Amino acid sequence: MQRFSEIVDRYRVLFFDSYGVLKNSKGLLDGVPEALADLRDRGKRLYVITNDSSRPPHKLAKAFEHPVYGPLIHPDHIISSGLLATRFLTRKINSGTVAYLGKDDSAHYIRAAGLRAKPVAECEHEEVSAIVLLDDEGFEWSSDLNSAVNIARRGPIPIIVANADLAYPVDGHRIAVAIGALGGMMERLLGRKFIYFGKPDTSMFSYAWAQVQALEPEVTKGDILMVGDTLETDILGANKFGLDTALVLSGNTRPEDAQRAIMSTGIVPDHVCASIVD
Amino acid sequence: MQRFSEIVDRYRVLFFDSYGVLKNSKGLLDGVPEALADLRDRGKRLYVITNDSSRPPHKLAKAFEHPVYGPLIHPDHIISSGLLATRFLTRKINSGTVAYLGKDDSAHYIRAAGLRAKPVAECEHEEVSAIVLLDDEGFEWSSDLNSAVNIARRGPIPIIVANADLAYPVDGHRIAVAIGALGGMMERLLGRKFIYFGKPDTSMFSYAWAQVQALEPEVTKGDILMVGDTLETDILGANKFGLDTALVLSGNTRPEDAQRAIMSTGIVPDHVCASIVD
Amino acid sequence: MQRFSEIVDRYRVLFFDSYGVLKNSKGLLDGVPEALADLRDRGKRLYVITNDSSRPPHKLAKAFEHPVYGPLIHPDHIISSGLLATRFLTRKINSGTVAYLGKDDSAHYIRAAGLRAKPVAECEHEEVSAIVLLDDEGFEWSSDLNSAVNIARRGPIPIIVANADLAYPVDGHRIAVAIGALGGMMERLLGRKFIYFGKPDTSMFSYAWAQVQALEPEVTKGDILMVGDTLETDILGANKFGLDTALVLSGNTRPEDAQRAIMSTGIVPDHVCASIVD
Amino acid sequence: MQRFSEIVDRYRVLFFDSYGVLKNSKGLLDGVPEALADLRDRGKRLYVITNDSSRPPHKLAKAFEHPVYGPLIHPDHIISSGLLATRFLTRKINSGTVAYLGKDDSAHYIRAAGLRAKPVAECEHEEVSAIVLLDDEGFEWSSDLNSAVNIARRGPIPIIVANADLAYPVDGHRIAVAIGALGGMMERLLGRKFIYFGKPDTSMFSYAWAQVQALEPEVTKGDILMVGDTLETDILGANKFGLDTALVLSGNTRPEDAQRAIMSTGIVPDHVCASIVD
Repeated sequence: MQRFSEIVDRYRVLFFDSYGVLKNSKGLLDGVPEALADLRDRGKRLYVITNDSSRPPHKLAKAFEHPVYGPLIHPDHIISSGLLATRFLTRKINSGTVAYLGKDDSAHYIRAAGLRAKPVAECEHEEVSAIVLLDDEGFEWSSDLNSAVNIARRGPIPIIVANADLAYPVDGHRIAVAIGALGGMMERLLGRKFIYFGKPDTSMFSYAWAQVQALEPEVTKGDILMVGDTLETDILGANKFGLDTALVLSGNTRPEDAQRAIMSTGIVPDHVCASIVD
Repeated sequence: MQRFSEIVDRYRVLFFDSYGVLKNSKGLLDGVPEALADLRDRGKRLYVITNDSSRPPHKLAKAFEHPVYGPLIHPDHIISSGLLATRFLTRKINSGTVAYLGKDDSAHYIRAAGLRAKPVAECEHEEVSAIVLLDDEGFEWSSDLNSAVNIARRGPIPIIVANADLAYPVDGHRIAVAIGALGGMMERLLGRKFIYFGKPDTSMFSYAWAQVQALEPEVTKGDILMVGDTLETDILGANKFGLDTALVLSGNTRPEDAQRAIMSTGIVPDHVCASIVD
Repeated sequence: MQRFSEIVDRYRVLFFDSYGVLKNSKGLLDGVPEALADLRDRGKRLYVITNDSSRPPHKLAKAFEHPVYGPLIHPDHIISSGLLATRFLTRKINSGTVAYLGKDDSAHYIRAAGLRAKPVAECEHEEVSAIVLLDDEGFEWSSDLNSAVNIARRGPIPIIVANADLAYPVDGHRIAVAIGALGGMMERLLGRKFIYFGKPDTSMFSYAWAQVQALEPEVTKGDILMVGDTLETDILGANKFGLDTALVLSGNTRPEDAQRAIMSTGIVPDHVCASIVD
Repeated sequence: MQRFSEIVDRYRVLFFDSYGVLKNSKGLLDGVPEALADLRDRGKRLYVITNDSSRPPHKLAKAFEHPVYGPLIHPDHIISSGLLATRFLTRKINSGTVAYLGKDDSAHYIRAAGLRAKPVAECEHEEVSAIVLLDDEGFEWSSDLNSAVNIARRGPIPIIVANADLAYPVDGHRIAVAIGALGGMMERLLGRKFIYFGKPDTSMFSYAWAQVQALEPEVTKGDILMVGDTLETDILGANKFGLDTALVLSGNTRPEDAQRAIMSTGIVPDHVCASIVD
């Protein structure tokens, strides 16, 4: 174990997972605003790399605004898996309606590709050119999952899952089924492969790296540290992309499980810290 | 391909899958009442082996009552995967509440084990000793799947899935997500194994065989023919149990796909027929 | 935790898993001969339910012969998954050559079905009607797994895996890849389903139960106790079949892991004992 | 369907899969040398993106040397999944021995990271810091897969699979088990996740893209076309990375299967061509 404040010196850019590292569903974790403000003041560039595609980046950024310290993460530094869905749709889909599962806020990632987006529930008579699974909220699961399955059967329609997570924590004890789990279920039922974006897929990290290269041209990969609470997504993906990684024990991985989890998965972070407030 | 009427002579007992062989969601398939009545008049014993655990056997039997030919399948001859759930609960669960997903009719299979059954939605403060997934209808998917996941996390609670099917046909074109798919999703999310009953699990066939032995002691396994429309469930399970099998092309497996499906799965029925009306 | 000697009184028939319960690769575990002899003297019927299909039952029985106590398990009481393969082949395969992976001793289970058995390596120009995976030893993995894959591609040839285990212990520390793992690999590569026998598949238990019914007609299912060291195979399969189960901690499940394993799998044995020598 | 010669005009850089597009195990496909020479003469930059990590890039390049047309693909333009293994090892492993499965030629990718490489067979008493699966040839499967499994159990040793392919074609009819299938088998047996490189993982494409950016700074992603014969690896990975794709029907995907494969997978190439010689 190391103290986070001691390991950050050697890095210029910090990639943070959101839940379990910076915040939970109640808000920013204790001490996080001060810690982020301090890093910002020390000239570190702060990014959030998140599988949350429930709303546009500027709305996701609001979660990091503090009454005293101000905006702690710039909207351009929020890398949501939704952005990768936008990029894919931009290049690959040219017409028709894109059907989605999620709230209207999440449809931002479809409209940002210049395409017409409609909830699955409204696509019975639409010419659907792609289906995007964005968020577990905002639709009626029973009717709309069945509708999505049957729309998918119409033809070679690409189905994009913009968040591969199976579950997310609601509070200290409860978890909720995430859209990635619903996508996996549909995938097996239909017997075909969907297109997943989001950690640990390395395209999240190459997208973020391209953004860093555009904004901070002199930064090298060795200047970046990925900080996450989940070995199988945050740490594995960043390790594969060639970034240094730090596992924090303030979220999904509890202190008493860390050794065994690293041991059994073989996913080895470069650093292990109690939290970023350390 | 063979004519069903020509192959049935050598068998005394017929095990039928229900959907795609005898009925669809609109009712009995054309010619099926006459065909079943004829088999019954010829002294054949008729059973239905079904993964449908949505209501008690006597209610499932109603689907086979005909205004002219009368009751075509006796309730004691309806072998539902729900019966295997009942047997498991009888032996293994002695107290507490059994939480279920499904309609009240499906809870029959829990109450038949002498246990208190409550919908998952009402189990927030119950001492839950088992969870049973019985039917995709009768509950609110979003809230109750999340509740079920969190109840499961309380302890070593066995979770029984009384219907392993991933989907079922709604009409000629549309399919619906079945409770087995929802169970599979929960299983992966929780990272633990559930207990599945239903074809192709051989316990369905050994349960049916025990019933036949009790009712028709002189019958041997070689006197039984399993008739199904799905290779991976009906035919595989019966083949493994040592029964002769007939694949009919009136349901899930369409005539143009039959050769390729048998070829690619290596699941080989003893007979292939267009339908039981043949 | 309970003492095994205290729980066995209520049972008349004992089903034992072999490895980790009665023996390891060096021989019978300490105290097991005495324990088995004592149970035998008390009139208990002793069976072994094993996924080991490497040699005929009478040869498997030799492992349970003791210089002082004599033969402890009768060959007719050794239920090997190979016997289920024999039964399947008897009913379903009528001609041609059955290609196998394993030692010549394992081919017993094919010849017992009245069929010609040849190692995969000798089947380049044979008319192969089925492939059976029996044992991880006795063939050259690289050449023969490749040959088996290509034989499988010739047509709708059923592929039977007579031992679903992924690994087996070689000694206290080392494990070895079992034929079930090789079968799983071939299955995914070919994109088709194989036919597996062996625990936890309930057909193992129904086969054993049929044998008990033939030999001890007055025994009921409630008189049987399944004793195993692995939750996911021994305990799950027997629980599903409706038998009482005892988990022993002398093999795969170590004492310090038992609580967590039961907790996380939801597979609950009726009894937990240190070993059968207790 | 389109003619390859008609679609290439708009692209400046061509990424080719190797097997089934440019060559088979006998050598370059008919007409390929002329086609590549023509593209080269027209100023197109030619790269090979391959999951083949059996030998160093300069040796892989030899397969593309032609007696008349000379070297058709430059060694610096061969992007092998082995290179991603090298990059990972460089950043993440600092000491100890790296154990590998494969021929000595494949160990290049470990030594290129400045690490000591030894075949798994020689690592019984080595301090192993990582295991890399490079090639299906060059080792004795039975003994060395078992050794690799037991080395893996020693601790949190990362296990890298430098080729995710399950099988590869040996000739027009036969296929062979690839190292990716052996890795998958070990992964399931050990119950832990390995680190896979190779298509469709987007890190292959971002690595290639970084190489293109270094060599041809004015090229944009839109100037690149990925040409492959397999939807699930070549086309899916490139589509996800944001590149245009062309499926050729000279390898894994036969003309009569193309429509159905695209239909059922939902993986849609931008172009479909008979071959690159068209």
